[in-house]
Amino acid sequence: MPYAPSASPDFFARHSDLLQRAVEATARRDYWTPFKESPSTKAYGEQAPAEGEAAFQAHLGKPFALDGHPGEGLVEVAEVSPYGMELRVSYPKVTVEQALSAAAAAADTWRGADPDVRVGVAAEILVRLNAASFEIGHAVHHTTGQPFVMAFQAGGPHAQDRGLEAAVCAWAEQKRHPSSARWSKPQRKGGDLAMQSRYTPVGRGSALLVACNTFPTWNGYPGLFASLVTGNPVIVKPHPGAVLPLAITVRIAREVLAEAGFDPNVVVLAAEAAGGRAAAEFALDPRVRIVDFTGSTQFGDWLEDNARQASVYTEKAGLNTVIVDSTDDYQGLLRNLAFSLSLYSGQMCTTPQNLLVPRHGFPTDQGRKSADEFAADLGAALDKLLGDPARAAGTLGALANADILKRLEAAAGLGTTVHPSAEIAHPEYEGAALHTPLIARLDAADHDTYTREWFGPISFVIGVDDTAHALEIFRQTVGAHGALTTAVHSTSEDVLAKVERAALQVGVQLSENLTGAVFVNQTAAFADFHGSAANPAASATLTDAAFVTGRFNILQCRRPATSQENSRV
Amino acid sequence: MPYAPSASPDFFARHSDLLQRAVEATARRDYWTPFKESPSTKAYGEQAPAEGEAAFQAHLGKPFALDGHPGEGLVEVAEVSPYGMELRVSYPKVTVEQALSAAAAAADTWRGADPDVRVGVAAEILVRLNAASFEIGHAVHHTTGQPFVMAFQAGGPHAQDRGLEAAVCAWAEQKRHPSSARWSKPQRKGGDLAMQSRYTPVGRGSALLVACNTFPTWNGYPGLFASLVTGNPVIVKPHPGAVLPLAITVRIAREVLAEAGFDPNVVVLAAEAAGGRAAAEFALDPRVRIVDFTGSTQFGDWLEDNARQASVYTEKAGLNTVIVDSTDDYQGLLRNLAFSLSLYSGQMCTTPQNLLVPRHGFPTDQGRKSADEFAADLGAALDKLLGDPARAAGTLGALANADILKRLEAAAGLGTTVHPSAEIAHPEYEGAALHTPLIARLDAADHDTYTREWFGPISFVIGVDDTAHALEIFRQTVGAHGALTTAVHSTSEDVLAKVERAALQVGVQLSENLTGAVFVNQTAAFADFHGSAANPAASATLTDAAFVTGRFNILQCRRPATSQENSRV
Repeated sequence: MPYAPSASPDFFARHSDLLQRAVEATARRDYWTPFKESPSTKAYGEQAPAEGEAAFQAHLGKPFALDGHPGEGLVEVAEVSPYGMELRVSYPKVTVEQALSAAAAAADTWRGADPDVRVGVAAEILVRLNAASFEIGHAVHHTTGQPFVMAFQAGGPHAQDRGLEAAVCAWAEQKRHPSSARWSKPQRKGGDLAMQSRYTPVGRGSALLVACNTFPTWNGYPGLFASLVTGNPVIVKPHPGAVLPLAITVRIAREVLAEAGFDPNVVVLAAEAAGGRAAAEFALDPRVRIVDFTGSTQFGDWLEDNARQASVYTEKAGLNTVIVDSTDDYQGLLRNLAFSLSLYSGQMCTTPQNLLVPRHGFPTDQGRKSADEFAADLGAALDKLLGDPARAAGTLGALANADILKRLEAAAGLGTTVHPSAEIAHPEYEGAALHTPLIARLDAADHDTYTREWFGPISFVIGVDDTAHALEIFRQTVGAHGALTTAVHSTSEDVLAKVERAALQVGVQLSENLTGAVFVNQTAAFADFHGSAANPAASATLTDAAFVTGRFNILQCRRPATSQENSRV
Repeated sequence: MPYAPSASPDFFARHSDLLQRAVEATARRDYWTPFKESPSTKAYGEQAPAEGEAAFQAHLGKPFALDGHPGEGLVEVAEVSPYGMELRVSYPKVTVEQALSAAAAAADTWRGADPDVRVGVAAEILVRLNAASFEIGHAVHHTTGQPFVMAFQAGGPHAQDRGLEAAVCAWAEQKRHPSSARWSKPQRKGGDLAMQSRYTPVGRGSALLVACNTFPTWNGYPGLFASLVTGNPVIVKPHPGAVLPLAITVRIAREVLAEAGFDPNVVVLAAEAAGGRAAAEFALDPRVRIVDFTGSTQFGDWLEDNARQASVYTEKAGLNTVIVDSTDDYQGLLRNLAFSLSLYSGQMCTTPQNLLVPRHGFPTDQGRKSADEFAADLGAALDKLLGDPARAAGTLGALANADILKRLEAAAGLGTTVHPSAEIAHPEYEGAALHTPLIARLDAADHDTYTREWFGPISFVIGVDDTAHALEIFRQTVGAHGALTTAVHSTSEDVLAKVERAALQVGVQLSENLTGAVFVNQTAAFADFHGSAANPAASATLTDAAFVTGRFNILQCRRPATSQENSRV
């Protein structure tokens, strides 16, 4: 019989309306969210901002408590805020063996629970994460370098949206078949041949979540909740530079699991300092049957090649491309693109890198613009957007780590720099600096440069012969290296149709003519897909059925239907 | 815009009721089929048996015509009926390059077609295959050695059921999201931020179907139809010993595709003689993005390890197990099991091999029976079932190939033979022989013998200490080597619950207390799952969402919602 602890709160009943609406939203794909994105007292209550900040501050310089967590002692991971401060939080120290043993022991009752029970627990975790959005927002701000409002939104309600979307997708896929059914086949001689079956969705084993530095919760929650709801315990392995947001998440998940009557070790935190090899060690363990990863192409490819016992969902790197053919809103195009390049200093897996522009010009509502003119105008749009230091700080945030700064310095030698990256003192944080986007002018021939990903505030205006040439480069480069996003600007439906056909061929999500307040590097849960699994940049999709069906199997148990049958269903 | 040839018949409209009922059947999981399983004139018409046999006979000794098929010349594959006759059918000779080029050229319009159009074509193909069930039945009979009624049923209507099940599962998964949607987010300042999106399910590339000798259509149709309906062209690579049933299938598929206005090379036949390496060559080609395989563990493992660019769905071998704990219908148990071991001379991937029986006896309605007594009684039940040559012929059929006969001869040296395999002259076919099942008595200690698969009419009565010991062996052997089926006999609900828990742990489908007319080696489409993907025996499941979601991706194209939007949806 499915396991459902009777003395515990019925989280499924509590959240059934929310869950039903979320399932409907994934099918309707209109705007929908239960989590308010404004970091305001109106949305979250008068005390929420101050209490959330105090909760964050209370973590600093202390051991992070997780009751009953496996392991012994503490690990110092040395998180340093991109805004200057050392966090000095220490976390439970756990070996791979301790983490997997604890997860396996916790798995039995979790696997045996009904999917309704599991999704109810997931919903309660998400609702409590939402209440902790200010605490998490500050933790994300001080580990990733995202500006605070973005850290609150992307690290809080938007990440919770993505987690809920994955949770209900995993739940819905487990409910496609009844939990039991009677099969009754009429016989030629009369009467029926009857069987009674039970169908049980069963998790595959332990899941490993390897999270990234820049979006620990937004990129981490989909895999976490998809694995949980399909009946798998999850080992959460944060990036050494961004542990705190996921430690808070693990704490809340464990509290809800325990209240629901489950072993809290269904979710285990595996924090380690930089240079550790725990992710690789976990990934090769035969008990790990699911891996979710966001990060470098190198480690993502290694996981795909080596974690052969597991379903592996990766989000790696790619060559996000913009094809400029024509526009009837040149200033809108420039404003929109300048913001996309600036947001979080280009440290999004979705930030455009390769801007393919006709060398000898393209038509706009302000006359024909050559690639050189376009590059200069884009630089001017950046300067206008980022001219005010407070607005610049709220848009750019800080560089997440020293590697990105090194790459930015190296990029100064690429092609012709048309907009150098400026270093601006941060208006709030002493010692922290803002870095504006660098734009280099390349030509189509410079493919050795632009077929590599330059993660950070680095983009290229690449001169091409014409739009047909741009499409050829797009097909070749994105076909070979992948992309998370592509955008096109054209006033011609014919050109737009051609670009869409090419995007379908190389398997990339496409945005057309963005000149307003929607940006190519942003996607909305329940409406926009992030990652297509159809090109080399990602095998994960947030979130469709393919993202969840590899996390469980359906097992059938059948017997002749007799009077016995009533005793077991 | 989706491609739907307007001058062609609307197969989707023609079959929409059938398709809707099939989708409902996959969810309800009661008995349902649109294809009559009786090879009778009442079901198929007065002329059908004679016409079907004549159609089969007309193929013999001739080139198999496939209009417009790629390649040059003919290949002689040397199919020999297990009943003695040489088929002498030759097939179009096609290189890997020719097949893949033709499929890729045909793919464009097929990929661009709406899933409704594709599933309509699939339904029409299945309905025409059903009308050809006698022709296909004779072809299956004379390539696999299945007795005719079984060849008709399993090769005809039951295979068509499995094809329809996969087709509608693939269709339903593509329809979870709308083809277009408007996203409208209220703005704080008033008004809406609105986007219009199109969502397109896109096939991954070319699909390769590597079929087996024993069930070319039943095991082949699910992958074929799942790949087709998700927008992928399919290269059908039959086993050299069983080409004709799939050649007929390809002919019908191509006829329907052409009538529907598509390039018939959406389905290509890649026949080759024994010893060819085309399957491996296809599987390593980067254009092949999906592989379906039924056959040996060795080649299945090779495909999983090497066809890394593809979604690989394998059905390999395993250790099908029966756990005998107790029974209140000893004679029913023996009759049922004797039939399971005899059907098609044990040449089913679902035939039980390892029968775990308490050495010192288990309770039955006819008193306590030791493992030795059980083995003797099972031998007697086999002799009773197979005593009449006509009934024996209709149950056993013939051995599909010489390898199985060699294995059967080798098995005579295993443990203590308690029921030797007898060779009986076939009552209809001169020169053909029937081979009754061999049963050897082993002990739990003989694990080197029983942890290998002995495909064919070979089973072991393995003495164990008690049911707990049986469960331990079951967990170890099926956990390590996998299984397609497991059965248990027990009068204790407590024991049945323990066995079900173990089956959920090792990930195998379970049948309890089969003593009547349902057999462990048979599954019904729309109700029973075949393969779990949860143990080493198979990564394919017939048919759930996991079997189809790896065959396509969902790609989104979004733009600001303006007056333009009406022009494109």
